[in-house]
Amino acid sequence: MRRAFQPDLICSGGRVLASAALLVEDGVVTSIGEAPAGVEVVRLRRAAILPGLVSAHSHAFQRAIRARTEWRARSESDFWTWREAMYAAAGQLSPDDLEAVSRMCFYEMALSGITCVGEFHYLHRDTRGQPYDDPNELDLRVLRAARGVGLRTVHLRVAYARAGFALPDNPRQRRFIEGSPDEYLKNLAALQAAVRADPLATVGAAPHSVRACPAEWIAQIAGEAKRQGWPLHLHVSEQPAELAQCRAEHGVNPPLLLEKLGALHENTTAVHAVHLDAADVRALGAARATVCACPTTERNLGDGIVQADALLAAGARLSLGTDSNAQLDLLEDARELDYHLRLQKLARAPLDPGEGRVDGLGARLYAVASEGGMRSLGLPGGALRAGEPADFIVVDLDDPSLAGCADDDLLAAAVFSLQRTAIRQTWVAGVRLQPDGARIVTDFRAAMARLWGGAR
Amino acid sequence: MRRAFQPDLICSGGRVLASAALLVEDGVVTSIGEAPAGVEVVRLRRAAILPGLVSAHSHAFQRAIRARTEWRARSESDFWTWREAMYAAAGQLSPDDLEAVSRMCFYEMALSGITCVGEFHYLHRDTRGQPYDDPNELDLRVLRAARGVGLRTVHLRVAYARAGFALPDNPRQRRFIEGSPDEYLKNLAALQAAVRADPLATVGAAPHSVRACPAEWIAQIAGEAKRQGWPLHLHVSEQPAELAQCRAEHGVNPPLLLEKLGALHENTTAVHAVHLDAADVRALGAARATVCACPTTERNLGDGIVQADALLAAGARLSLGTDSNAQLDLLEDARELDYHLRLQKLARAPLDPGEGRVDGLGARLYAVASEGGMRSLGLPGGALRAGEPADFIVVDLDDPSLAGCADDDLLAAAVFSLQRTAIRQTWVAGVRLQPDGARIVTDFRAAMARLWGGAR
Repeated sequence: MRRAFQPDLICSGGRVLASAALLVEDGVVTSIGEAPAGVEVVRLRRAAILPGLVSAHSHAFQRAIRARTEWRARSESDFWTWREAMYAAAGQLSPDDLEAVSRMCFYEMALSGITCVGEFHYLHRDTRGQPYDDPNELDLRVLRAARGVGLRTVHLRVAYARAGFALPDNPRQRRFIEGSPDEYLKNLAALQAAVRADPLATVGAAPHSVRACPAEWIAQIAGEAKRQGWPLHLHVSEQPAELAQCRAEHGVNPPLLLEKLGALHENTTAVHAVHLDAADVRALGAARATVCACPTTERNLGDGIVQADALLAAGARLSLGTDSNAQLDLLEDARELDYHLRLQKLARAPLDPGEGRVDGLGARLYAVASEGGMRSLGLPGGALRAGEPADFIVVDLDDPSLAGCADDDLLAAAVFSLQRTAIRQTWVAGVRLQPDGARIVTDFRAAMARLWGGAR
Repeated sequence: MRRAFQPDLICSGGRVLASAALLVEDGVVTSIGEAPAGVEVVRLRRAAILPGLVSAHSHAFQRAIRARTEWRARSESDFWTWREAMYAAAGQLSPDDLEAVSRMCFYEMALSGITCVGEFHYLHRDTRGQPYDDPNELDLRVLRAARGVGLRTVHLRVAYARAGFALPDNPRQRRFIEGSPDEYLKNLAALQAAVRADPLATVGAAPHSVRACPAEWIAQIAGEAKRQGWPLHLHVSEQPAELAQCRAEHGVNPPLLLEKLGALHENTTAVHAVHLDAADVRALGAARATVCACPTTERNLGDGIVQADALLAAGARLSLGTDSNAQLDLLEDARELDYHLRLQKLARAPLDPGEGRVDGLGARLYAVASEGGMRSLGLPGGALRAGEPADFIVVDLDDPSLAGCADDDLLAAAVFSLQRTAIRQTWVAGVRLQPDGARIVTDFRAAMARLWGGAR
């Protein structure tokens, strides 16, 4: 299957090219330039092709609590009371409902321009806390939802051992917890085998956090991830209470603990990494690890602001995640990465790479949202260079949110102003995503009605 | 003209009603309840009616610099270098181009659910700094653009006297400056007369700021505004440099200066009001003045965070503005009002009115975006109660950003999650807005090409 996509503009490798064609063969970009004679040409009028966006950290099932933790918020509400509301959903979802909720979430991702998701999934067991006949039952449901919509997906199967250091068991976590790192790794290997035939689905290892996993778990899982070439994702330093626990148990902050355990390297993604001291930043940078910021969720949960400028200066990489999926707009996450620092520093453009650089602020933030996510998930691509997967979006240059922009400003306009109405098409591996939206919404509404007793 | 609008849900007075009809007669809501026999019924399936959104502070012409100040941002860029870029556009726009740019901006507002705009307009003179034959030429162009799209508009004609206290004249402000408060007030009275026949256009007085207007100007204009019943809008305490100037000239911060000049009362709107001390907050609260926050622009410009919780506690009112129109999404502004405080306080929901209150956080923030804006502009309405203007939006309950929400969660879902794709229709005074989008975009692109020499 060979096709030349011919829009007005193509963004490739951070540059915006006019009058070029994107040549795609078997799901891969083969070249950018003139369309060769004889090849099928897909003309895209008044349109630009941009790299697909990557949510490197998602909990799809949390779509079920969207808005329901806001109206009911109380003045004394905080991250930990929000977590109780989330547990209420997690405790009840049937496999069918989990699949319907996840499909809704992934469908909205596709509409918002996301082509690849890192699904950090920690619901494994049944409502009583017993393994399903297939211990990957729920993981496979979520995977099926993503692949049904057509997204490229990296299923980050989560290891969860305990409520926390010196904390009593929390029965609301009964669906997350497995018995041992051996059991977890066996299940993850089985999951990998189950998706082997699908070129668009892979797996990764995800010890939940230093709170939920003791050091032995993290060390063993990180060792196996290294042997298997899996990306390694963990929640790191999201909330002050979590840091205090880590220091009480290990005497250091989470990044230094990971370093000590051999779990901090260039295939590691530290999700959130909001509360860091200078030594933490140095460790993440020296390891060339990725920090996955989830600013839209981090502002919702009152987590705080990722010090993206300090992390980049230290050598760390960045990616973005939609996390709780309270709002699905990864370009909003990209702009917040800079905007939250502007609010903190009362200055403009702290992440601007400096005058005269080809990759200006818009290009840099867009790359975090695309390439940065792919790297974070252990995948090549994200920049639409020759040889990379043909994962892209087609945006409408006449959409009111983009209209009138100059070629050189396209990436800045996309990052700072694009609305979802501008996203005309989403393509993954050279295939256009066209899921059955009406059915997805109907099934989701039914699941929500079962879960909460009322859904309009 | 009498019609009953029959959606699934109607939000009126902060409450969400099912199975009711919104009865509209001559542009006004007459009742909410059963549709009387014989009246034309407009069925809106899978839809909710919500109050129209109000941008109480806009500079429509700044749509022309969208994205163009981001890519070109430099590490040393700040509010004041951004202002130079804005001046480059302001200095060149012809009346036709100003109208085309404004129409583009207002069209996007309509698509985003805004029904009423407070246009804070300070371009009055020609490119050489001379008055046009009609000194309201440019003001009338902007007004015509808003009314052509169909928005309700309050034209806040700006008074601009000088670059600042003890600052030399800035030739880039030559189109803003008029000779005296008398000249300004004469022009404003003429503008009011010119729009008298239009029930959807009114005017307001707007001394630009304590930087750009000396005390005598503010006192005289505020006095006339009181006599005429005009709303009084000013930029207040947006940037630290502006405060320093005010203290040097007057020995107090801007809010206390306004109080001293008789310019701080319940018809006053202090736009931004980011940098306030405790005495400033007390003065704004005691006056029952409105603070118009513009968080999306304030984050873009690195202005800082509006202390909305302290202002509410002191008795001040709140409204929202899209200001630079870098991004047109007033519900994003509404959520940022709470979110920026969450990031600052590392807590959830600082603006939640407290447990057990009918007007939960979503309802409160929505009301700031609708009712708060109308009050700020001196207009009744914004809540769709009987007797108020029939300015509303129709949102799609099956849109993926809203799907599955419960009736009680509708306002929280709208404030925290709604994407523009959910906005199906926008109605002002009982009339549906259906501007010619293709023509508006084409004209805008031509204006941008003339202005900058390149627009895709």
